[in-house]
Amino acid sequence: MSADRDREEQIQMAWRHNAAPWVQAVRNHTIESRVRVTDAAIVDTVLGDQPQTVLDVGCGEGWLCRALQAHGIATLGIDMEPALVAAAKAAAPGHDYRTTEYRHITTALGHHRFDLAVCNFSLLGDQSVAQLLEALGSLVTLGNRNLIIQTLHPHSAFGSSAYKDGWRAGSWQGLGKRFGEAAPWYFRTLGSWVALLHTHRWSIHQLHEPLDETTGRPASLIIHARRQAPAGDPTEVK
Amino acid sequence: MSADRDREEQIQMAWRHNAAPWVQAVRNHTIESRVRVTDAAIVDTVLGDQPQTVLDVGCGEGWLCRALQAHGIATLGIDMEPALVAAAKAAAPGHDYRTTEYRHITTALGHHRFDLAVCNFSLLGDQSVAQLLEALGSLVTLGNRNLIIQTLHPHSAFGSSAYKDGWRAGSWQGLGKRFGEAAPWYFRTLGSWVALLHTHRWSIHQLHEPLDETTGRPASLIIHARRQAPAGDPTEVK
Repeated sequence: MSADRDREEQIQMAWRHNAAPWVQAVRNHTIESRVRVTDAAIVDTVLGDQPQTVLDVGCGEGWLCRALQAHGIATLGIDMEPALVAAAKAAAPGHDYRTTEYRHITTALGHHRFDLAVCNFSLLGDQSVAQLLEALGSLVTLGNRNLIIQTLHPHSAFGSSAYKDGWRAGSWQGLGKRFGEAAPWYFRTLGSWVALLHTHRWSIHQLHEPLDETTGRPASLIIHARRQAPAGDPTEVK
Repeated sequence: MSADRDREEQIQMAWRHNAAPWVQAVRNHTIESRVRVTDAAIVDTVLGDQPQTVLDVGCGEGWLCRALQAHGIATLGIDMEPALVAAAKAAAPGHDYRTTEYRHITTALGHHRFDLAVCNFSLLGDQSVAQLLEALGSLVTLGNRNLIIQTLHPHSAFGSSAYKDGWRAGSWQGLGKRFGEAAPWYFRTLGSWVALLHTHRWSIHQLHEPLDETTGRPASLIIHARRQAPAGDPTEVK
C-alpha cells in the first residue's frame, strides 16, 4: 500500500473513531470559527447561486443540507462514514443521504444531476480529491455547472512549515478530550488548488475570503468554480 | 479633487521624483526579492505563453522588455514617467517605448494588438487599475487574450492591518537614502483581485506563487488571466 493510500485510509479511520463526538461538536456549536464565520459564509455562497438541487459532498451530520432544505433546496448528502450519515438521516427524515466513498461517487450517483456540488471542509486527501474533482464534472447539470469548495485558507494554514504541497499532521484543535487520534490532511497552496481545478476543467469564477472580524484575517477560502465545457467535446454530452 | 484621485497623483509624483535612483536600483540589482525570485518568475511565466508580441504596462526602465527581446519577442513598453521611458529607450535602441498614462492607453495604442499584456508590480492604484483592466481587453489579440500580473502577494503584504481593501502608505523599503517620499498604494485582497478581473471579463487561468526558498513563503502573486469572449457579444469584434 502506498504512503498516500495509507494516509487516505487514516482519514477514513479518524472519522470512524470520532463520529460521535463530531456530531456533538457540530450540534453544540463548539467550533468557534464555524459559528462566527464559515457556516454563514458557505450558506450565503450557495444561496447566491440560486440552485434548486445541491449535492453536499462530505455532508457529515448534515447541518448544511438542513440549512439549504430550509430554503427549499433539494439536497443529497453523501459521506463515507455510516455513523455520520445515520445522524444526518435521523435529523432530517425524508431527505436523501447516502454512505459512499468519494471514489465510488459516480457509481453511487450515476443517474443523478445537480445544479451545484458543495464541499464544505471535506476535501482532506491527495489523490482522492483529484479523483473526486474529475467525477463531480459528470454530476453537475450541463449549462449550470457549479462547484463550491470551502477549505482552510492556504495562507492561514501553512503555519511554520514551508508553503508547499504535502501531507500534514491533523488535530482536533480546541474540541476537547472526547476526540481520539486526528487524521493527516493534504496541504495545497493556493496556486495548487487553482492548478488542480484547472486540470479537471473547473475554472475559477470567484474566490471568497470570509473575514473573521475578531482577528482581521480570512477564516477560510471559498472557491467558486464552473466546469469548462469546450465546444464539440464529445465527452461532455453523455 | 477626490481622495482617490489625489492618491493616484501622489503615485505619479513619487515616480517622477524617484526615477533616477529607481533606474540605479534596478540596474544595480539592489532589490533582493527581484533578483532572488520575482524577475525570473515573471520572465518564465511570460515565456510559458509563447507570445510573439508583448505589451509591458508600467515598463519602468525597461529590464523586462529587454529580457523578452533577448528571446525574440517584439515588445512595446509604456510608462507614465518620461525619465523612465527615456532610460528604457537609451538601453534598447530601436525598440518601442512610449510615455503614456494608463488612462490614455487606448488612445495611445488604439491600433496595436498584442498576444499578451504584462503588468509587473505596476498596478498601484484603485480606479486607475480598474480602468486599465477594461482598456487592456481591447489591446490583446482576439483568440489569444492573455494578461499576466505580478503583484505583492496579498497574504504577505497586509502586515498588521486588517485584511481589507484600501489605500496603504508606501515605502522604498531597503533601497537606501537616495529615495524621497514614497507613494501610497491600493491594497486588494486576493478575492478582490479575482472579482475585479471578473468584472472586466478576465477569467483566472492560473495563479502562481513563486516561492522564496530563503523564507519558505511566496515572494509574490502572479495572476494569469484570459479575456472571456462571450459568443455573439457585439462589443467583442471592433
